[in-house]
Amino acid sequence: MSNQPLINHMCIIGVGLIGGSLARAARQRGLCASITGAGRNQENLTKAQELGVIDTGTTDLAEAVKNTDLVVLAVPVGQTENVLAEISKSLADDTIVTDVGSTKRSIVEQAREKLGNKFSNFVPGHPIAGTEQSGVESSFAELFQDRRVILTPESNTSKTAVDIVTQLWSSIGATVTRMNVDHHDEVLAATSHLPHMLAYALVDSLARMHEKTEIFEYAAGGFRDFTRIASSNPEMWHDICMSNRDAILKMLDIFQKDLSRLTQAIRENDSETIRNIFSSAKQARDQLRKK
Amino acid sequence: MSNQPLINHMCIIGVGLIGGSLARAARQRGLCASITGAGRNQENLTKAQELGVIDTGTTDLAEAVKNTDLVVLAVPVGQTENVLAEISKSLADDTIVTDVGSTKRSIVEQAREKLGNKFSNFVPGHPIAGTEQSGVESSFAELFQDRRVILTPESNTSKTAVDIVTQLWSSIGATVTRMNVDHHDEVLAATSHLPHMLAYALVDSLARMHEKTEIFEYAAGGFRDFTRIASSNPEMWHDICMSNRDAILKMLDIFQKDLSRLTQAIRENDSETIRNIFSSAKQARDQLRKK
Repeated sequence: MSNQPLINHMCIIGVGLIGGSLARAARQRGLCASITGAGRNQENLTKAQELGVIDTGTTDLAEAVKNTDLVVLAVPVGQTENVLAEISKSLADDTIVTDVGSTKRSIVEQAREKLGNKFSNFVPGHPIAGTEQSGVESSFAELFQDRRVILTPESNTSKTAVDIVTQLWSSIGATVTRMNVDHHDEVLAATSHLPHMLAYALVDSLARMHEKTEIFEYAAGGFRDFTRIASSNPEMWHDICMSNRDAILKMLDIFQKDLSRLTQAIRENDSETIRNIFSSAKQARDQLRKK
Repeated sequence: MSNQPLINHMCIIGVGLIGGSLARAARQRGLCASITGAGRNQENLTKAQELGVIDTGTTDLAEAVKNTDLVVLAVPVGQTENVLAEISKSLADDTIVTDVGSTKRSIVEQAREKLGNKFSNFVPGHPIAGTEQSGVESSFAELFQDRRVILTPESNTSKTAVDIVTQLWSSIGATVTRMNVDHHDEVLAATSHLPHMLAYALVDSLARMHEKTEIFEYAAGGFRDFTRIASSNPEMWHDICMSNRDAILKMLDIFQKDLSRLTQAIRENDSETIRNIFSSAKQARDQLRKK
C-alpha cells in the first residue's frame, strides 16, 4: 500500500461552510498533502488558516491555482463564471477542476466557454449537504458523511478526473452518483428549488398580512418546520433562480396547476379528489420517512 | 382554600390524543372529581380506562353527558354536528359544553342550531397542540404545556362558562386567548391550513413525477422538514377543508397571486423583486425563530 495521498496539492476557492468542511474532511483522512484556500476576503482566509482548515490563503485566485492537482470551486453559483474566467489561464493542462454548485447546466456551459480546451478536466459536482449556517467557523469534517454527491460529467469529461473527484467524496463518507446534467437540474428543481420558492413566497405573503394582524403569534410547530428553509440565504437563492431558471419555471408551472386542482376541489366540495390528493401525499411522505 | 375541584363531573367525547391528554392533565392537577369518556369505539374506551385516563366509558353519548358539569367535544371536526345533535336533549341547563376543533365558524353555527337555548353554554375552543401521532395511547398530560388555546365566545356566551373553560386550560399550562370567531378561522387558515394544502399538493405532485423518475432519492433535510405535515391524517384535513372552506380559499387565492408574482420575476430575470421577496421572508422567519 502506498502512502501517496490521493491529491498532492488541492486549492479550494471559497472557504465557507462547504469549502471549509471539505478541507477539514480531506485533511482528516489524509487525502491531500497541502491545501491552499482562495477567496475575496483576506480576513476570512486568515481565520481559516488559524482554524487549521487550510495551509495557506490568498486573494489572488489566478496565483492560487498554479501548480495544483485539484481546484474546488466552492463559491456561490452566481460567482462561478467570474472565478472560472479569472483562473482559466493559470490552470495546468492536467489540473482537475470541480465545483459544488446546486445547479449544473448553466455552470457546465460557463465552464465550457471559460476553460476552452481544459474543459475536459472539469467535473461538475453537487454535494447535497448544508446547514442553515454559513461561513468557515460553521464548517466541520463530518458534513458530507452519508450524504449524496451528484456528478454530471459530459461525454468528453476526462475519466481520470471523474475517478479522482469520485474518490475524494467517497473517502469522506459521501455516496457518489452520476447523472445527466439536465436531469440533475430537474430533480433538484423539484425537491429543493421548488420547496424553497414555496416557503419564501408563503412567508413573504404572511409577513405582509402580519403588518395588519398578529398572525405569526399562532404559528405552531408544523409551521416552523414548513417554513424553516425560508431562513436560507437570499443572495444564494437568487443566484440559484437565475442559474436554474428554466427547470424552476417548469416545476412552478406543474405545481401551480396541481394546486389549482386542489383549490377547485375545495371550492366544489369535491371530497373524493381532496381525499385522493391528501392520501397519495401522505403515502409518499410516510415512505420517505421510513428510509 | 377550598378543596372543591374546578369541575365535579367531566365528560370527554372522543378519547384520542387531544381528549386523552386533556383527561390526563385534568386528573393530574386534580381539576375534576370524575371523568366519563364517550365515543363510538368500545375497545378504545376500554383501553382508555385500563390506562387510567378515564373513570368510566360508554358508547351511548346521550347517556354519557347526563349529570355532567362540563362536556368536551374532542372528535374530528366533521363529526361535531352529529355529536351535538345526539347529546343536545340530555344536557342539563347549566352543563357547559366546549370543543377542540381546528375551525370555529362552522362549529359555532352547528352548535347554535343543535343546542338551541343551551347555546349560551357552548364555549368554542381550539388548543393549538398536537403531534403527528393519534390515539389515546399517544396521549400525555404535558401536551398543552406552554401551548396556546384560542376561545371564540359569541356575544351571548355565558361569562361563567368562558371563565371555567379558561381556568381548565390555564390550570394545565396553556395560555388562553380570546378571539373573534372569523378572525380565528383566517389566522388558522393562514398559518396552519394553507401550509398543509401546500405540503399535500407538493408531495402529491412530486409523487406523480416519481413514478417516472427517482426524484425522492435526492430529497435532503430541508425537504423532509418542509413536507413533514403532508404525513398528517387525510380524513381530519378533509374535514378541516370542508369546515373552513371560505377562509382557506381566500388564503389560497392570496398565496397563488404572490407565487405568480415570484414566478413572473424569475421568468423576467427581475433580480430586485426576487431579492425583495426572499429577504422579506427571511427576516420574518428569523424573527419567528427568536421567540
